[in-house]
Amino acid sequence: MLNFDEARFLRIQSGAVALAAPIHAAIGAALAQGGANIFFLGTGGAAILMQPAALMLQRRSGFPAFIEIAAELVAAGHQALGPQSIVVIPSVSGTTSESVATLEYCKARGATVIALVGNVDTPLGRKADHAFVNFAEDDTSSESFYVQSLLIALSVMAHRGEFAGYDKTVAELATLPGHLVAAKQAFEPEAERLAEAFRNEPYHIITAAGGSWAEAWYYGMCILEEMQWIRTRPVHAADFFHGTLELVEKGVSVVVFKGEDAYRPLTERVETFARQYTDKVTVLDTAGFGMPGISAETRALISPVILATLLERLSAHLEVKRNHPLTTRRYYKKVSY
Amino acid sequence: MLNFDEARFLRIQSGAVALAAPIHAAIGAALAQGGANIFFLGTGGAAILMQPAALMLQRRSGFPAFIEIAAELVAAGHQALGPQSIVVIPSVSGTTSESVATLEYCKARGATVIALVGNVDTPLGRKADHAFVNFAEDDTSSESFYVQSLLIALSVMAHRGEFAGYDKTVAELATLPGHLVAAKQAFEPEAERLAEAFRNEPYHIITAAGGSWAEAWYYGMCILEEMQWIRTRPVHAADFFHGTLELVEKGVSVVVFKGEDAYRPLTERVETFARQYTDKVTVLDTAGFGMPGISAETRALISPVILATLLERLSAHLEVKRNHPLTTRRYYKKVSY
Repeated sequence: MLNFDEARFLRIQSGAVALAAPIHAAIGAALAQGGANIFFLGTGGAAILMQPAALMLQRRSGFPAFIEIAAELVAAGHQALGPQSIVVIPSVSGTTSESVATLEYCKARGATVIALVGNVDTPLGRKADHAFVNFAEDDTSSESFYVQSLLIALSVMAHRGEFAGYDKTVAELATLPGHLVAAKQAFEPEAERLAEAFRNEPYHIITAAGGSWAEAWYYGMCILEEMQWIRTRPVHAADFFHGTLELVEKGVSVVVFKGEDAYRPLTERVETFARQYTDKVTVLDTAGFGMPGISAETRALISPVILATLLERLSAHLEVKRNHPLTTRRYYKKVSY
Repeated sequence: MLNFDEARFLRIQSGAVALAAPIHAAIGAALAQGGANIFFLGTGGAAILMQPAALMLQRRSGFPAFIEIAAELVAAGHQALGPQSIVVIPSVSGTTSESVATLEYCKARGATVIALVGNVDTPLGRKADHAFVNFAEDDTSSESFYVQSLLIALSVMAHRGEFAGYDKTVAELATLPGHLVAAKQAFEPEAERLAEAFRNEPYHIITAAGGSWAEAWYYGMCILEEMQWIRTRPVHAADFFHGTLELVEKGVSVVVFKGEDAYRPLTERVETFARQYTDKVTVLDTAGFGMPGISAETRALISPVILATLLERLSAHLEVKRNHPLTTRRYYKKVSY
């Protein structure tokens, strides 16, 4: 595979799933100490990657779960934040200034802070009540935060007796890193073909639903916009029909991510529509990638992880074909803002 | 003012604020009958217009409030939805198929449904437990749903003893329609100037924060994309710095909506950044429009309403200058999907 370090990838992904036991212990301790709600407070892409876990918890668990824009929470507070709160803050660098400010704000209100970081010897790592470290050299391994936040959400439900399949699911997730490598290998030729097709494409409407919506939003904003300077319009598959559809005509790229959760039919509706009105429809469907031993229920939960791992291959080819390294920026870490 | 029917506008806006008392009574009755949580379940633009009220309730009230994508709720349910739920469904037409499906789904689970409609003799109006009717000939009067959902949220807080200023705020809101007309008049020359500047602009990054973020999202998706076929990238002011900023360069339009709530500094950060790197920065600031008798606290709550009322003027000029009526569609009500 092009520019792919398999050993490094497996190390990062295995590191994420290996956190299941310590995360489960920390959540158990926080609940035993009176934890009564949970906040997912990321910044930018790291916030988006926790959305599937937060949504699952909101929709399936009686445990109050909030996913807030961290900068807004710090600006004006939240009635449910206090000593009874468990706060999850992810930051690969462990130094993101907004995340450090969020941690300090929440600690000042007595919350228990769980940090997900790439290095413990950082402001976030040192100041958190629980710091879970998964060394990652860069911030494009988005699978890791999806998995870690999912482990947190499943742990909350398991401790509360709301999810009987916890042990089975964690055992399945332990096999995920190898499956992801196999999926990348299977997708590699299509990734190159897609990168060629996208090479000079100036604009993409990108859509998805359910847990996979996060990946449409993330890939548009944090990869295509930030790392390739390509205009995107991430739009939820349900919203698509209430405005954005009118932009579709011949020559307009519509990219549909299809996951395997209950919300898949919403994306199929967009696909059916788009195929009638533009010649540029790209569908990325997790269902095409077999993963023996992983149940349908778990596949529904990890659909955004599978999408992210496939899309990493697209990004690898895009940066080469477009002669635009993923690390090149106009502003980030170049000017202050 | 260009293509503006003042009497009709005042009738619609006065109709919205006149619903304060019946809404307050209905919410009181629902709470007395065991109402224990509230769901805001709109579709497309109508969903977005309830977001400021839902966010305020989530952040300031202990009453559990959910704002869900209706199509997703119907696809896979929600643990908190049941006989103890108050469900708010807005639809000007009262016939939106997704909204009717949502109503039936929620009624089947015993929830109390409040419909906000333009005509009571519609599927939504007839089947709801409480139907609040505010006759509106078209669906571009977005101010009305902002105000009605705000009245619902404030009523919940007032009944629970969480908002002492309810009577004062409602009295202030009663004067809003006239203030909105005055704001439109003051903005009219600027609206024409802006429409001229936007006339041939193919793409806008549109951003805001707090309650006003809904209007950035709504105006991009439901007006510029749907009604003018102009590409937009609605992005929250906090997210802007985590990807979309890299698209900014000379010639790229960045539109910043500034409201008057606690989240205003997030938008000022984008404005400061954008002014350094593009020559096309448009700032729409509610603070420039005086409304004697309306308190700072209420202005913070109604900032998206003020933005919507100013932007309606921009739309009125855009459709003329671009020779593209706001009612022209490629697909909506022309093909089935």
